[in-house]
Amino acid sequence: MTTPGRLYLVPNTLDFGAPQRPGEPLPDLQQVLPLSVLQTAARLTHWLAENAKTTRAFLKRVDAVTPLAQPLQSLRIEELPRPPKGQPGRAQALRPADLARLLQPALEGQDIGLISEAGMPAVADPGAEVVQQAHALGIPVVPLAGPSALLLAMAASGLNGQSFAFVGYLPVDEAARGQRLRELEGLSRRIGQTQMFIETPYRNAAMLNALLGALQPATRLSIACGLTLAQGWNRTMTVQQWRQAGVQMPGDVPAVFALLAG
Amino acid sequence: MTTPGRLYLVPNTLDFGAPQRPGEPLPDLQQVLPLSVLQTAARLTHWLAENAKTTRAFLKRVDAVTPLAQPLQSLRIEELPRPPKGQPGRAQALRPADLARLLQPALEGQDIGLISEAGMPAVADPGAEVVQQAHALGIPVVPLAGPSALLLAMAASGLNGQSFAFVGYLPVDEAARGQRLRELEGLSRRIGQTQMFIETPYRNAAMLNALLGALQPATRLSIACGLTLAQGWNRTMTVQQWRQAGVQMPGDVPAVFALLAG
Repeated sequence: MTTPGRLYLVPNTLDFGAPQRPGEPLPDLQQVLPLSVLQTAARLTHWLAENAKTTRAFLKRVDAVTPLAQPLQSLRIEELPRPPKGQPGRAQALRPADLARLLQPALEGQDIGLISEAGMPAVADPGAEVVQQAHALGIPVVPLAGPSALLLAMAASGLNGQSFAFVGYLPVDEAARGQRLRELEGLSRRIGQTQMFIETPYRNAAMLNALLGALQPATRLSIACGLTLAQGWNRTMTVQQWRQAGVQMPGDVPAVFALLAG
Repeated sequence: MTTPGRLYLVPNTLDFGAPQRPGEPLPDLQQVLPLSVLQTAARLTHWLAENAKTTRAFLKRVDAVTPLAQPLQSLRIEELPRPPKGQPGRAQALRPADLARLLQPALEGQDIGLISEAGMPAVADPGAEVVQQAHALGIPVVPLAGPSALLLAMAASGLNGQSFAFVGYLPVDEAARGQRLRELEGLSRRIGQTQMFIETPYRNAAMLNALLGALQPATRLSIACGLTLAQGWNRTMTVQQWRQAGVQMPGDVPAVFALLAG
């Protein structure tokens, strides 16, 4: 019996989709990724990716620091099936036959890299089903250290880091979103738990408006925008202070929102 | 008015307290930390630390990769007040006067590094109050990318990464712990949320027993032990499968536990 390969969970940078000044190179990968992650990525020949094109772009950046073991063109990069439109982050319900096919190289002894467009795969991003199936098949799963917007936002918030939850995306519908926010605020007050969520960047401003409209003045709200990027910032204030500060949210940089009821 | 310095949240390795073979050096910091984090750490002269001794050990390892800007002996390393015994992870309720004193160098224009004994400061570790106070004083907070046992365990679990909670430590008392586990399992079933928690390493085996006794057979349980370490492993199975597998938990390596009700 062949010893199975491993499934490496390879963190990506957080600069995906962020605007750049013309002619400005992307930041060096060593800004946010450990050297050993680059070395592992450089030797992997099989990839499962949220997006094949952005994975190739990532591997070009890896190659600039640590030459790839094989030419980029010869690597096998398979895309994970996409979630249904308009439901970012929803469970994808991959068919078992797809999962088996995607992981077949590992059963044949090949190491596989799992990667998303930004941050850690399988956390607020596709990939959990693949990881689950790897466990079921006895394929060792090796998570590699790297940037995670959620974790960095949590640390930077100064809110309760002994009890916190990430709840994904909120409803887009205004009334439903307001209700969900009040529900999360009530839960936060009852059990003292920080509640975190994300939004697609072009709805950042709408989200801030919704937060300032729905939450109590004493609730503490943290926003971390463009983490690890040159233009990134983060700030924690009470809702009342946010109302007075008149902060403008960028519409093209990802943000993480966190609240803790007072 | 002086421009304030920044408060850098500096990630540490995850090998704190893990057993080593005699004569074996600690792993190279570049295994788990980006080069830019080492460069930032090497130039900081003011530190706020969970533990001054382990911070000096960390800085010696940094120095081996990127020479420190000033001799180790000349750095100012202040310890955060310790939480009360037997209450790991509880809010520390630092006095405002202490917080003001700890952050005074930043108000005078000095950058400060905040660091814990392992992983990210202020997440499942001391430091959140300092971060909160930095926001209140207008001191910019800069979280640096690095390893977090919680985040790595979440990714490696294959459980729901679109909705998850970290709830810290569970009660030590057997009856109270069983009740808390059933409460977390019920919550997980109701809202489909992964529930994560930690335990001090010498209670790892007791925790696994408690989990196998309290949870439903179909609940999925993930254990990640010694993440990023050579002897590390992680595994996700149903409670029923764990009962049959007879896994022995090490008593000297940190573990993260995660469950998702079936």
